[in-house]
Amino acid sequence: MSHPFEGDPVFELHVGGKMDIRSTVELGSREDLSLAYTPGVARVCEAIAADPSMTRHYTWIPNTVAVVTDGTAVLGLGDIGPAAAMPVMEGKAVLFKAFGGVDAVPICLATTDVEEIIETVARLAPSFGGINLEDISAPRCFEIESRLKEMLDIPVFHDDQHGTAVVALAALQNALRLTGRLPAETRVVIQGAGAAGVAVAKILLEAGVRDLAVLDRRGVLHSSRHDLTPVKRALAERTADVFDRSGSLADVMAGADVYLGVSGGTVPEEIVASMAPESIIFGLANPNPEVHPDVAHRHARVVATGRSDFPNQINNVLAFPGIFRGAFDVGATSITEGMKVAAASALAALVGDDLTEELIVPSPFDPRVGPAVAAAVSAAARADGVATR
Amino acid sequence: MSHPFEGDPVFELHVGGKMDIRSTVELGSREDLSLAYTPGVARVCEAIAADPSMTRHYTWIPNTVAVVTDGTAVLGLGDIGPAAAMPVMEGKAVLFKAFGGVDAVPICLATTDVEEIIETVARLAPSFGGINLEDISAPRCFEIESRLKEMLDIPVFHDDQHGTAVVALAALQNALRLTGRLPAETRVVIQGAGAAGVAVAKILLEAGVRDLAVLDRRGVLHSSRHDLTPVKRALAERTADVFDRSGSLADVMAGADVYLGVSGGTVPEEIVASMAPESIIFGLANPNPEVHPDVAHRHARVVATGRSDFPNQINNVLAFPGIFRGAFDVGATSITEGMKVAAASALAALVGDDLTEELIVPSPFDPRVGPAVAAAVSAAARADGVATR
Repeated sequence: MSHPFEGDPVFELHVGGKMDIRSTVELGSREDLSLAYTPGVARVCEAIAADPSMTRHYTWIPNTVAVVTDGTAVLGLGDIGPAAAMPVMEGKAVLFKAFGGVDAVPICLATTDVEEIIETVARLAPSFGGINLEDISAPRCFEIESRLKEMLDIPVFHDDQHGTAVVALAALQNALRLTGRLPAETRVVIQGAGAAGVAVAKILLEAGVRDLAVLDRRGVLHSSRHDLTPVKRALAERTADVFDRSGSLADVMAGADVYLGVSGGTVPEEIVASMAPESIIFGLANPNPEVHPDVAHRHARVVATGRSDFPNQINNVLAFPGIFRGAFDVGATSITEGMKVAAASALAALVGDDLTEELIVPSPFDPRVGPAVAAAVSAAARADGVATR
Repeated sequence: MSHPFEGDPVFELHVGGKMDIRSTVELGSREDLSLAYTPGVARVCEAIAADPSMTRHYTWIPNTVAVVTDGTAVLGLGDIGPAAAMPVMEGKAVLFKAFGGVDAVPICLATTDVEEIIETVARLAPSFGGINLEDISAPRCFEIESRLKEMLDIPVFHDDQHGTAVVALAALQNALRLTGRLPAETRVVIQGAGAAGVAVAKILLEAGVRDLAVLDRRGVLHSSRHDLTPVKRALAERTADVFDRSGSLADVMAGADVYLGVSGGTVPEEIVASMAPESIIFGLANPNPEVHPDVAHRHARVVATGRSDFPNQINNVLAFPGIFRGAFDVGATSITEGMKVAAASALAALVGDDLTEELIVPSPFDPRVGPAVAAAVSAAARADGVATR
């Protein structure tokens, strides 16, 4: 097929899209049709009408997630709209399948209104076993996710928040092990208070970190500030018992053990140099990490990025396929904090004795990753009382 | 996997649902991921953001249809809700793929409100190349379809209306050929003025039928009645120049050439007996035709039903896969009356010299069906000026 960017390997790969639908039943004879379609199918419909939980046996619903975006925060490209977001959503969908055996349907919405997104997803919900929100800008993403979680009895998961948070926590657990630190005694700085920054902060608190400074473009989130969104204010208050300072990045980086960048900015080298010895630096902005690895390595012991061409890639694909696999395997009605922390610990544990400064998270191509994350998530769902089977 | 109806062939076939998602790209290496996902995918997103028509080259959108229902008129089961409708929607989706090469995504909505259905489908539209409305009760289906057709620049098609109409027209064209009648000189009675009845009436008028009585439960649609919905009134007025009588089924069946039942009722044999010689009887209700074939054959020359266990099955699967295939092949922005009539004529023509009383439509398993319908629909789209390539 002729197309405008012939010869470009990225565009060549995208011709016709990256996914399709496949029938899992035979349709070659009238007999086949009478089982898969009319008249046979009517009996399956009647069984579900009598007992809606039958969908889990006789439809694709319990293994299918909607990957929903409004196209407002796509990769580092920003608000490019629903159509231009589709290649990312298709990519996400095929990663769900390849790494978690989860069927995923990309849904790009022609609205950016919070209420409209919420009501639209709620209306679609009977068709799906879970909702993966994707590339929806902050702070809108927080309300959309929390309201949908309340309304729906299926998992709702905003990957830009929680996928990033799970993998970052896994990497940090191993980095702390390598440098002999305990979470409760580690000083952490998170730069960026968008979707990823807020979620990383919350999961670190969940995992026992206490001394935590979170910064947005105007400085440390602190309750004395009058410009905070409700989500930022809640975070400032939650960290206030241990960390209760305002200030700039330079102020909080002096002596910090961990820097975690999810902002897209750049940290001057003299600030990097002011961190504690054996520091840990995760610059997760793509394609340009907040601290370039060459700079980071001059001052830190453990360095991670979001890029595949450096060691220690903090890649969400380590998390979301296994998290939904594990949630679906036990019919979880939501994804709890406990399930996320369990996913992170399972990821961290897979590195095991191979742990080095250059290997703090497993490879996405390690075939143990999906099953290990899924098993940990299923067990945590049971422990948290959200499993239905 | 254990399930409640083990051993029942219909339920056994439905375990796990009938479809899944497949990746069409390799995802086995970091290099694969960098092309299909980050960082490579960003360039495809940017190309689409700059020129949204690029979706037709680099996404699955142009080959993908949403099969949308609210579960209010599922098969003959009525309003069974969205979850119980899923087995039918999955069945439709796999038929789309098997017989048209079209990727179809089942969407079962948790609302039956006309405005909410319209706005929800409109918000989903950027994700799809077409919308197939399915099993939405009349008269709500008429407004939903017509409003969405106006709002969207992709094909919107209510299969219960137009799929049925296309195949019925094809069958009728061959039945008329067999009995030496011309459409303009044929007296036709349609019993049932729901989704299918209205659409069949419209396509017959489009195809040259002039003497046409359409009946709902209260009798012939006639402009003297005060209980008609806007759609029924329009139909009564459109047929009034030739056929302008009120009355009962018995009144209009006396001397009629063609009976077409899409009502789910039953026609007494004495009424069947009152039709013209060499009459044509299509009883399309499932599973119980309005006139049982055994009864019909005592009085009529050509008999068709909606059932696969009698000859001449009026089966929508002959139409919808090829219609969307043909529309998608030329990037049609809508499905016109001309495209539907072309689909019917292509179907009728496939029977060719094999035409007998027992063979007025091709078999769904005839491999020529999908391509022939698609080619006719593409050509008609060009002729009607709705093709974009």
